[in-house]
Amino acid sequence: MNDQPPVRGVAARVTDILAAFLPGDVRLTLTEICRRAGLPLTTGHRLVGELTAAGFLERLPEGSYRVGRRLWRIGAQAAEPRGLRELALPYMADLYAATRENVQLAVLAEDRALCLERLRGPQSVPLFSRVAGDLPLHATGVGKVLLAFAGEETADRVLGGPLPAHTPHTVTDPARLRAELAEIRRTGLAHTLEEMSAGTCSAAAPVLGPGDEVVAALSVVVWRHSADLRRLDPAVRSAARDLGRDLVAAPSAGRKSQ
Amino acid sequence: MNDQPPVRGVAARVTDILAAFLPGDVRLTLTEICRRAGLPLTTGHRLVGELTAAGFLERLPEGSYRVGRRLWRIGAQAAEPRGLRELALPYMADLYAATRENVQLAVLAEDRALCLERLRGPQSVPLFSRVAGDLPLHATGVGKVLLAFAGEETADRVLGGPLPAHTPHTVTDPARLRAELAEIRRTGLAHTLEEMSAGTCSAAAPVLGPGDEVVAALSVVVWRHSADLRRLDPAVRSAARDLGRDLVAAPSAGRKSQ
Repeated sequence: MNDQPPVRGVAARVTDILAAFLPGDVRLTLTEICRRAGLPLTTGHRLVGELTAAGFLERLPEGSYRVGRRLWRIGAQAAEPRGLRELALPYMADLYAATRENVQLAVLAEDRALCLERLRGPQSVPLFSRVAGDLPLHATGVGKVLLAFAGEETADRVLGGPLPAHTPHTVTDPARLRAELAEIRRTGLAHTLEEMSAGTCSAAAPVLGPGDEVVAALSVVVWRHSADLRRLDPAVRSAARDLGRDLVAAPSAGRKSQ
Repeated sequence: MNDQPPVRGVAARVTDILAAFLPGDVRLTLTEICRRAGLPLTTGHRLVGELTAAGFLERLPEGSYRVGRRLWRIGAQAAEPRGLRELALPYMADLYAATRENVQLAVLAEDRALCLERLRGPQSVPLFSRVAGDLPLHATGVGKVLLAFAGEETADRVLGGPLPAHTPHTVTDPARLRAELAEIRRTGLAHTLEEMSAGTCSAAAPVLGPGDEVVAALSVVVWRHSADLRRLDPAVRSAARDLGRDLVAAPSAGRKSQ
């Protein structure tokens, strides 16, 4: 190909390499990193070598690469996930201690529910979610809460776009979803029933920041047959409310920065 | 100055800029970033602009910069903090729910105790520690545990180096610290009494990985007068032991990568 891509800055090549690890792959080969970053192997090899020397990447014995601890340390300074998750963790701990189940904290990011923190134990139902990963808005408890309070424009865009069925129970009818969102706004609670993965259900509530805007959603995800979902409602609702009060008392932690 | 620094790779300039945020400063000005990274303002301005465009940094309204959410998302993929902290969180949640106090998980890194996770609530005693920050080995519960099991070479280096007194109660006598480390190896528990900050005390226990090596330390830090420290011992010890069992069952999570 003779069509050269437009000249990009040197920093962009580095960020493209690091962003190759974004989808959650723990290990990538040099070839895979270069393919995702759109770089020739020679350039990629040199830059990956520098990033490894700096501790941003780690080279594993078998030759592949993963994100290094130094990059984790720097990323952990990000103000928004840090402040919000630090304030949320004690409430999530209480919900976990009471249920032994998955407790999740998510924010709206690029029309997805970005998981800021997840607390689960050995007995918790297995889930697709992971910290720093994202989930569909229409098929998850946290997602429905965030979508319900995201405003008309976001709702129109998401409900007008593809609404994949993750299970036979995923609600994919925009009109039915709109009715659910209105109900969530009315009650301040969202429920899902095997809509993201078979056998699980969830209860989720909005977390209000300064100015009463919804800045996050908190949920508990349990086995469908393990608990009365309605019993979770008051626990999730009060944890989300108390977290919101802490956020208002420390407003910088809840500031959005999309 | 005419002395040019040796030519470094382009990636190194980017990592130097990002590492300027390592000490835990939430916000830095462009001038401060360039000073820490050892870059001329013109070069720094261009690279910081590219990093901001990529979402790795965020420019705040008043003109300073902070770490962006995208960098947090990539850093969160780091295998070691992720696996260890995910397995540890449910045990930390139980310790928090039982005490309402600071619960900390740390690993040995560069002769410091690197805090992988911290769980605390509104009533917990204020601490210097923060996630991704590090603490001195000789003056903290997690640090003493890690030092006790780090081997002779590390102990000689740390005890032979500076041992700053963080409070009037910090133990700075190498012989007394050596005796404490032997006692910690014997009992499997470390205690501190106002050695890092006035009014606080802690109990800490080692977390064993596959092969029975110590891979982390778990602690609870409480007000000196709020609790009988000895009551914490069995709780911290059993949480650390159970976490170790989970680590052995999922060995990749506890693999060290210093």
